[in-house]
Amino acid sequence: MLKEELYKLIIKKKSFLCVGLDSDIAKLPKHLLDFDDPVFEFNKAIIDATIDYTVAYKPNLAFYESRGVAGMQSLKKTIQYLNKFPGQLFTIADAKRGDIGNTSKLYAKSFFGNEDVSKNFDAVTVAPYMGEDSVAPFLEYKGKWIILLALTSNKGAENFQLMESEGKKIFEHVLEKSGKWGTSENMMYVVGATQARMLTEIRKIVPDHFLLVPGVGAQGGSLEEVAKYGLNDGCGLLVNASRSIIFASNGNDFAEHAKSEAGAMQKIMQTLL
Amino acid sequence: MLKEELYKLIIKKKSFLCVGLDSDIAKLPKHLLDFDDPVFEFNKAIIDATIDYTVAYKPNLAFYESRGVAGMQSLKKTIQYLNKFPGQLFTIADAKRGDIGNTSKLYAKSFFGNEDVSKNFDAVTVAPYMGEDSVAPFLEYKGKWIILLALTSNKGAENFQLMESEGKKIFEHVLEKSGKWGTSENMMYVVGATQARMLTEIRKIVPDHFLLVPGVGAQGGSLEEVAKYGLNDGCGLLVNASRSIIFASNGNDFAEHAKSEAGAMQKIMQTLL
Repeated sequence: MLKEELYKLIIKKKSFLCVGLDSDIAKLPKHLLDFDDPVFEFNKAIIDATIDYTVAYKPNLAFYESRGVAGMQSLKKTIQYLNKFPGQLFTIADAKRGDIGNTSKLYAKSFFGNEDVSKNFDAVTVAPYMGEDSVAPFLEYKGKWIILLALTSNKGAENFQLMESEGKKIFEHVLEKSGKWGTSENMMYVVGATQARMLTEIRKIVPDHFLLVPGVGAQGGSLEEVAKYGLNDGCGLLVNASRSIIFASNGNDFAEHAKSEAGAMQKIMQTLL
Repeated sequence: MLKEELYKLIIKKKSFLCVGLDSDIAKLPKHLLDFDDPVFEFNKAIIDATIDYTVAYKPNLAFYESRGVAGMQSLKKTIQYLNKFPGQLFTIADAKRGDIGNTSKLYAKSFFGNEDVSKNFDAVTVAPYMGEDSVAPFLEYKGKWIILLALTSNKGAENFQLMESEGKKIFEHVLEKSGKWGTSENMMYVVGATQARMLTEIRKIVPDHFLLVPGVGAQGGSLEEVAKYGLNDGCGLLVNASRSIIFASNGNDFAEHAKSEAGAMQKIMQTLL
């Protein structure tokens, strides 16, 4: 999906919500466990319930890989289902990959280059530690996106991302250097919502890029702050919520609850756009 | 596998060779393509041929994931085959994972915590960018190892790993800080062979840890240098070779050629130990 198509989608849905499909089988509503593939049934119901309010879906691969071959089947069915809505949503594989060039080429192929295009994602999250040649292979696919970790929302972000070098923090160097590897048409950044005020500084370095912001709950606590400091002329934000939406209820009514949580976030986003 | 068991294995085999199972299906000997699972047949033959000279095997997950569900089947069969040799080899999932704590917990479970223990690895490679809580969940499994990226062998290592902060390079900070998260009994580091001379400085920071060293070919070019600067009292090295061994020939005799390449490296290692 091209940047202008993503922007049009945001305007049409009046939303910049990303729903994280962190579909932990241990947390699914009990009645789904009777299905052959409970995780896929869950994802399908969540997607159907939230699609009007949601511009992007982000399966977190750990929740699928940890279930081995069966989990990879659930993931495959999920991306194939998402791809039944062309132009209506943006898909992100939250994989946090990153390896030497030749290996990254294979990861890029896994997510972007399947001959069966129904298995391809629009974007993949990538770790920056190994530098340019670990990132470059992902940028060779037209209309596909890399979402590079810059400033993450976890405590461990302090350990290395916030260290100073030559008067700037390491994550700022990541933004600056990687800004020369790709463009705002094929690269986004992960920036944690716990650091909303830092978005002002980040916007000085990457004014035009989309930022994927995790760590915002349904309560919308910091959503206004994130929007205040992070929005740009082309929206430039995808705000992710996972558990607060998909596990809003674990009863038979889980999809309705997910819908109302997503709807509540969309309403706030509509006023912020 | 405990550190002292690994050391005993090295002494017994007079080798610190790790064979990388970067089993690219496009590069396999043609006659294997008639099998149901060519990649597994290839890996099995390589393992059988090289096991006398090899202490560790390292499947690179990209080569399996890029083939989707079929690739994950090959990987599962490979680790299950490797686990038929208890105490005779050390297994490494080269996955370069790293995510927030809750997600890393699931990755750790994928590699270390399967109820069916035949699917578990001894070690997994992890990226340090997200800091302590992304690493900690892997350290909760007794007898299991994290292999943290420190100084990688690719060109992109220059971009961030070699930046200076507070008088030290970023990869040195990775070694120092992470040294407090785990011990030399459950943590190793990836250090590229292209940087053999830097091993002197690295050994000052982590004198007791094992280092996993990629980037050494069968020609043994830099093997002596790596040993000179990297060996410690408990060996402390696993030197990886992938393509130079597994793709030494792509004819019917691929396993014999792999055996002789691995044997040649073992012979050099024997004199270095």
